[in-house]
Formats: sequence, C-alpha cells, structure tokens
Amino acid sequence: MKVSELATRAGIRLSAVKFYQREGLLPEGTKSAPNQVAYSEAHVKRVRLIRALLETGGLSIAATKEVITAVDAEGMSMADTFGVAQHAMSTPRTSPSAPSAESRDLVIRLAQSQGWSFLPDNPGIDAAARALDGLRAIDFTLTDDYLSAYATAAATAATADLHALAALTDPDELTELMVVGTILGDPFFAGLRRIAHENSTHHLFPTTPKRDAS
Amino acid sequence: MKVSELATRAGIRLSAVKFYQREGLLPEGTKSAPNQVAYSEAHVKRVRLIRALLETGGLSIAATKEVITAVDAEGMSMADTFGVAQHAMSTPRTSPSAPSAESRDLVIRLAQSQGWSFLPDNPGIDAAARALDGLRAIDFTLTDDYLSAYATAAATAATADLHALAALTDPDELTELMVVGTILGDPFFAGLRRIAHENSTHHLFPTTPKRDAS
Repeated sequence: MKVSELATRAGIRLSAVKFYQREGLLPEGTKSAPNQVAYSEAHVKRVRLIRALLETGGLSIAATKEVITAVDAEGMSMADTFGVAQHAMSTPRTSPSAPSAESRDLVIRLAQSQGWSFLPDNPGIDAAARALDGLRAIDFTLTDDYLSAYATAAATAATADLHALAALTDPDELTELMVVGTILGDPFFAGLRRIAHENSTHHLFPTTPKRDAS
Repeated sequence: MKVSELATRAGIRLSAVKFYQREGLLPEGTKSAPNQVAYSEAHVKRVRLIRALLETGGLSIAATKEVITAVDAEGMSMADTFGVAQHAMSTPRTSPSAPSAESRDLVIRLAQSQGWSFLPDNPGIDAAARALDGLRAIDFTLTDDYLSAYATAAATAATADLHALAALTDPDELTELMVVGTILGDPFFAGLRRIAHENSTHHLFPTTPKRDAS
C-alpha cells in the first residue's frame, strides 16, 4: 500500500507518519518501483503501536524509541525486556527528584509484607515512593488498609499480565505484549478506577439534584 | 519564614518557587515589613503539593492550576471536585484521539458486569478504551479473565480511596485528598505493579544466571 493508505488505515495524519519516520520510530517501506515505496500490514501495526505508546502511554519520543528497539531486539532476555518497559514508563516527565527515605522504606516494607521477591533497584519502588511523598504533602495518613488495598490491586493486575504472557509461545508476540502491556496496563487501570470512583461516590456521597424539581 | 527558607523546607530550588508564583500556582506571602515578605507552613505544604502534581502526577501547568483552584474553591460539591481531578488527570498529553467504538463498548460492558453505576460521560471510559485500542494494535486477545482482573483491581483501589475520604470530616482536607488522591493513586499503583511484575516474573520465567558460576 502507499504511504497515504498506511496513514488512513492506522487512523493518523500523513504528517504524523512522516514525523515517525524522521524520528526513526517507523522503518521505510520497500522500494517497489522508482519513486514508489510500498508499505505492509506490519507498518500499519507499527504505526498503531507508536501512537498507543505516545498518546495513551504518554511516553516521550526518546522513551518510545527505546521501547521499539527492545521490541525489535532479538535474543533479549525476558527480564531485560521487562526492564526496558519499566524504565521507559517510570522516567519522570519533568526534573526527576529522589523520593524521601521514609516513603521508600514504606514501599519496600509494604512489598515485603506481600511476600514479593524483588531487587532494590526496581524502578517501581521510587515511583510509588514519590506518589506517597505527594500524599504526605497534604498530611494524608497512610493507613495499613489503604496501602495493602493498593498492593492487592497491583498483585491482581500483575498476575493477569503474567498469565496473558504465559499463554503466548511466539517470542516476538511475547516481547511485544510484555512491553506494551506494561505501559498500557497503567492507563487501563486508571480509566477503570475513575469509573469505579463514580460508582463509589454515588454510594458514599449521594449528590443533591442541581435544580429543584418541584 | 523567608522565601529562601520556604524553598529549602519544600525541597526545591528558589527559581522553582518563583516560577510557581509567576504561573499563579502559589500565592504571595504576607508583607511583614517594607521589602520583606513572610511565608507560612501553608506555603510549604502548597509547594510540596504543586511539586507532587507536576512531577509525580505528570500534570501540565494548566491542569495543575485547575486542580489548585478546585482545592481552594469553597462550596464546590463532592461530585464537581472529583470531576476536576478526573478531568485533569485524563487530559491526554498529546493530540487527543477518540477511542474506537468497539473498545468503548467493551469498557462499558465490563463496568456494567461489575454492577457499577456511572454516567456515559465519565472520562475513565475513553481513557480505558484508548488503552485497549493500543493492546488491540498488537493483536492481543482481551480475555474475560484479563479484563475482570483489572476491574477487580480498580474496584479494590477505588474502595480504599473512598474509605480514606469518608474518614475525614474537615471539608478542606476532604477536597484536597479527593483531588490529590485521585491523581497520585495512579502512579502509586503503577509503581507497585512494577514490583509485583518482578515478583511474578521470577515465578513464571526463571532467569538463567548471566555468568557461569563453575
């Protein structure tokens, strides 16, 4: 197919396709004739993947490139590929700051209390600790119930992720799902949590009608 | 305290404090003498909150301003305050695109299957549907087990959020936690999910040692 059809099929503007190519995210098509380049289904899927990482995952161009490189790399171990996805998603968008030692300790103790085995350099520790620092800034008391509810939620999602991975046999598909699933699982959860909030709010804080119906 | 002490106490550079003030995020201190402005504990807390929203929550300056305004607003209903937080966090960082109708339907059916009550304009629907579009782009089969595990995780976290809110009586604290907790609950979950991934990976894909120990 022509580049214009590729853009239509992937649901983005032609200028975006050219931008992805300039940034080295999308490989060139195959030269099918002089002045003519053909694109395949693989290109359509790649464009959709890039868009998902940039828009929905909120990754930077540089982080998206790292992820794409990891997806394409042959013979990378599962642990290393997971590491790239974790790193890409955990890179703060503004100036990075170290979380407080208190919050880091709290996250580590929480994870240990769940019986999880992990290394001290797991990027999730700092990411979770920074969030706790923000909650501390408003003097929110982090109760055990609150902390363990989030740990339970994280374990539920992580188990589902790993079961989905274990069902795959093709190493390319496995890598792709590992990276994309790691990144897009967060906004999927975030979206569902917002719907669940509305439901819980109805129960806990019944709203008064805005206009008097009488 | 002086502005330099405010910066030290809140753990940011003086230039960042001035930037927050220029952007209208942080109110001026009280004039304590000619050419002298005094800052209070309330300013320290506010700076920490702004930093948490910008850095950890990944909000834009404009979205942070909306959230701060909602926190300061008097007499805003619970539902409206929640709405501001949901909107701020759900605003895509790059050009917004509508999710596919298939993914939107799938999210709505999933939420309904959990017995949740919600309105069709809840921003979580589109956010979750966009993530599913990204997963579809790599031909991932969205099984019922995967989808309902995420819904269970979201309900677990949302219930913990609402219980934390219900424990508060001061309306200011309630509003603050509603907004900040909505935004920072996502990166808290995301960090914990990464630690849980490492744990599950050890079980499902045992790594081979990098060097031969013999």
